[in-house]
Amino acid sequence: MRQDVPLPQAYRLLNHGPTVLVSAAHGGRRNLMAAAWAMPLDFDPPKVAVVLDKSTFTRQLIEASGELVLNLPCRAQADMAYTVGSCSGETLDKFEAFNIGSFAGSATGAPLVEGCVAWLECRLLPQPDVQTRYDLFLAEVVAAQADTRAYAQGRWRFGTGPDADPALDKLRTLHHIAGGRFFVTGEQLQARSEVKEVKS
Amino acid sequence: MRQDVPLPQAYRLLNHGPTVLVSAAHGGRRNLMAAAWAMPLDFDPPKVAVVLDKSTFTRQLIEASGELVLNLPCRAQADMAYTVGSCSGETLDKFEAFNIGSFAGSATGAPLVEGCVAWLECRLLPQPDVQTRYDLFLAEVVAAQADTRAYAQGRWRFGTGPDADPALDKLRTLHHIAGGRFFVTGEQLQARSEVKEVKS
Repeated sequence: MRQDVPLPQAYRLLNHGPTVLVSAAHGGRRNLMAAAWAMPLDFDPPKVAVVLDKSTFTRQLIEASGELVLNLPCRAQADMAYTVGSCSGETLDKFEAFNIGSFAGSATGAPLVEGCVAWLECRLLPQPDVQTRYDLFLAEVVAAQADTRAYAQGRWRFGTGPDADPALDKLRTLHHIAGGRFFVTGEQLQARSEVKEVKS
Repeated sequence: MRQDVPLPQAYRLLNHGPTVLVSAAHGGRRNLMAAAWAMPLDFDPPKVAVVLDKSTFTRQLIEASGELVLNLPCRAQADMAYTVGSCSGETLDKFEAFNIGSFAGSATGAPLVEGCVAWLECRLLPQPDVQTRYDLFLAEVVAAQADTRAYAQGRWRFGTGPDADPALDKLRTLHHIAGGRFFVTGEQLQARSEVKEVKS
């Protein structure tokens, strides 16, 4: 089941540094690509930063539409994530070619990828200088959803040692290393601060 | 043992999205802070992007010196990482206050944090507009090192299921969730691509 994530909490979906699939659509074309280089940029309103190489068709669609979606793939989708990161959508529709389902978002026209565990719909915050010079794109998150099996009540639900639900194992998020090798998100720990008054 | 990481491979230290400690020094002062929002920005020469809030003393030191170090803390340092992320260095020296060791880098004057598993020494690439507007700082990596127990021959060594070395468990990197809760970096998997010709 999918549920909306309140916008001031949307950064939590990305805070642990997972690899994302970036999707976009424009003028009847759509595409998705893998991106390990994405991170939150602000809490509220939530913003993100993502690196999009000049050679990618997804970048063309994002520049034309001003919209993108960051989809968080899970362990069960590792092969798909690697596959869509290994080819260009300029000459094929990756959704059709690799049998990838999608559904419509609530705030943008970009496709949301089925089977992912979280989705951040974003609107580009144009910064032509850093886009051209560093391939760096900034965007505001305008809608966010998560699979409630993996994320509910403001928290990721997988991975706390003996309390972990083994059924959630296939829903763990991914962290790309190189060449299709990924770390899966591991177990949780709670650190203790030596400082009495903790600022969040 | 620490070993230099060749600069074109420095992105691999950060590719999986770990939380970092940002350290800096200027005019006889030094500081370090935790930052979950950091990522690679380019391969070669390697560049990084990191979000540094206006309220942080570390940011003042970076703006004054033009230098910063991204230190990768490990599981054994989770309490320290949370502690230095919970207070300001404006009125105390966190290294002294929390008994944190440091050593000199090879390319910058910023302190490298002992016990971390990797270190990226960086020089600021000034982008006043995005720094002011989005608290976003871009930097070039000018030297990189790693603890060879955790990272050697271009690869992280922890976490491949039955092959994993349990002694490396305490050296796993961290991924901040919120409020001192962290994921540790989990096990590795190798994905298969449906595309025959894979671009890296």
